[in-house]
Amino acid sequence: MNATPANPIQLVPGNSLITKTPEEGRQLAIKMSRLIVKATQPDAAVREKLRPMYAEDPAMLIAVCQAVATEFATIAAANNYWR
Amino acid sequence: MNATPANPIQLVPGNSLITKTPEEGRQLAIKMSRLIVKATQPDAAVREKLRPMYAEDPAMLIAVCQAVATEFATIAAANNYWR
Amino acid sequence: MNATPANPIQLVPGNSLITKTPEEGRQLAIKMSRLIVKATQPDAAVREKLRPMYAEDPAMLIAVCQAVATEFATIAAANNYWR
Amino acid sequence: MNATPANPIQLVPGNSLITKTPEEGRQLAIKMSRLIVKATQPDAAVREKLRPMYAEDPAMLIAVCQAVATEFATIAAANNYWR
Amino acid sequence: MNATPANPIQLVPGNSLITKTPEEGRQLAIKMSRLIVKATQPDAAVREKLRPMYAEDPAMLIAVCQAVATEFATIAAANNYWR
Amino acid sequence: MNATPANPIQLVPGNSLITKTPEEGRQLAIKMSRLIVKATQPDAAVREKLRPMYAEDPAMLIAVCQAVATEFATIAAANNYWR
Repeated sequence: MNATPANPIQLVPGNSLITKTPEEGRQLAIKMSRLIVKATQPDAAVREKLRPMYAEDPAMLIAVCQAVATEFATIAAANNYWR
Repeated sequence: MNATPANPIQLVPGNSLITKTPEEGRQLAIKMSRLIVKATQPDAAVREKLRPMYAEDPAMLIAVCQAVATEFATIAAANNYWR
Repeated sequence: MNATPANPIQLVPGNSLITKTPEEGRQLAIKMSRLIVKATQPDAAVREKLRPMYAEDPAMLIAVCQAVATEFATIAAANNYWR
Repeated sequence: MNATPANPIQLVPGNSLITKTPEEGRQLAIKMSRLIVKATQPDAAVREKLRPMYAEDPAMLIAVCQAVATEFATIAAANNYWR
Repeated sequence: MNATPANPIQLVPGNSLITKTPEEGRQLAIKMSRLIVKATQPDAAVREKLRPMYAEDPAMLIAVCQAVATEFATIAAANNYWR
Repeated sequence: MNATPANPIQLVPGNSLITKTPEEGRQLAIKMSRLIVKATQPDAAVREKLRPMYAEDPAMLIAVCQAVATEFATIAAANNYWR
């Protein structure tokens, strides 16, 4: 949760929640989640070290699913569910 | 959270949230959750090793339920609850 | 998250989110949560072994409440809250 | 998640989500959460033993807050937020 | 989850979700979360002992954020987002 | 959860959920989450000590993502998803 004022991280790629397809909406959900990690832990070397820790831990992988699902719910509503 | 740009994983099967029935919506929710795990941990051998870890751990099984429930909420809304 | 293609588990009893009463909606929420556990851990003997583990662990019981509450939110919306 | 078919627990007191006031809605949210615990762990003696475990554990108390908040969101929507 | 029938705790201050401003809505979300803790653990001395435990534990602080965010979502919807 | 009555923390910067862009909405979500931490743990020195604990812990980073996603869902709805 440390956005550096001098060089802020872009938190919403394209500055829009609107995507052409559900697939792109899902990719955006993943990216937006990753960017919160980046804003909270700006040091790329530390993030690199943490990646295998969660990618090989089933409980953390499930927690990633939960976080992405929550982001996606918002993106899907924004796109009127691509109906 | 590592979608390989060269060979990206399809995150939304059929690229649509619309399903014929609640049953199919539920299956889609499970698949979409699994595909986030796959995008985050692309190594099939590692995923194979992790499976029994969460499938035999009650806390993780409950967490899976929570993640799937969150995905399903979005899919159900997309389908106007199949009313 | 292992639905066997040959003999898939029915994930939504009655293939509908519509129930006559809130009480039945609540029962459906519990069943739908349990069926995700069943789809993820298809071995009944293993599930039998896990049950006392979560039924006697207060943190897991609270997590069950959370998962069921999330399922119920969807079912309640589907039924227009039985108003 | 063990509702005994012969003597099922009532999961929604009054079989309605409609309450006169937010205060009563909040009480209903707490009751509905507790009834999921009761359905999952029907043995009153065990539940009695678990109570001090979560009532004296700050992480579990916060988890209770989360579960009740999720139930209350549904009840509040059902009541059109008592506006 | 132990509201004493004889002297019940008021769970929703003012018995309304309506507030003048987002700031007051946020304060209400915090209060409503705290009152669930109070209803679950009515002993003030025990609560006093638990406070430093979660206030100095980063995982619990994040969990508090999650619970308050969920309460606030309901309050914000009740107030039509103060638009 | 200790807002000091004498010198209360401002919990919603600008006392509004309305932002010009999704990017600003995302920044607001992060800030609102941080302000709940601040209200719960008002001692800046303690917060300073806790920061590296969660910024280097993958499970806590994922939990931060979850909390921010929940705040953002409310802010996005308030802004009609910036459509």
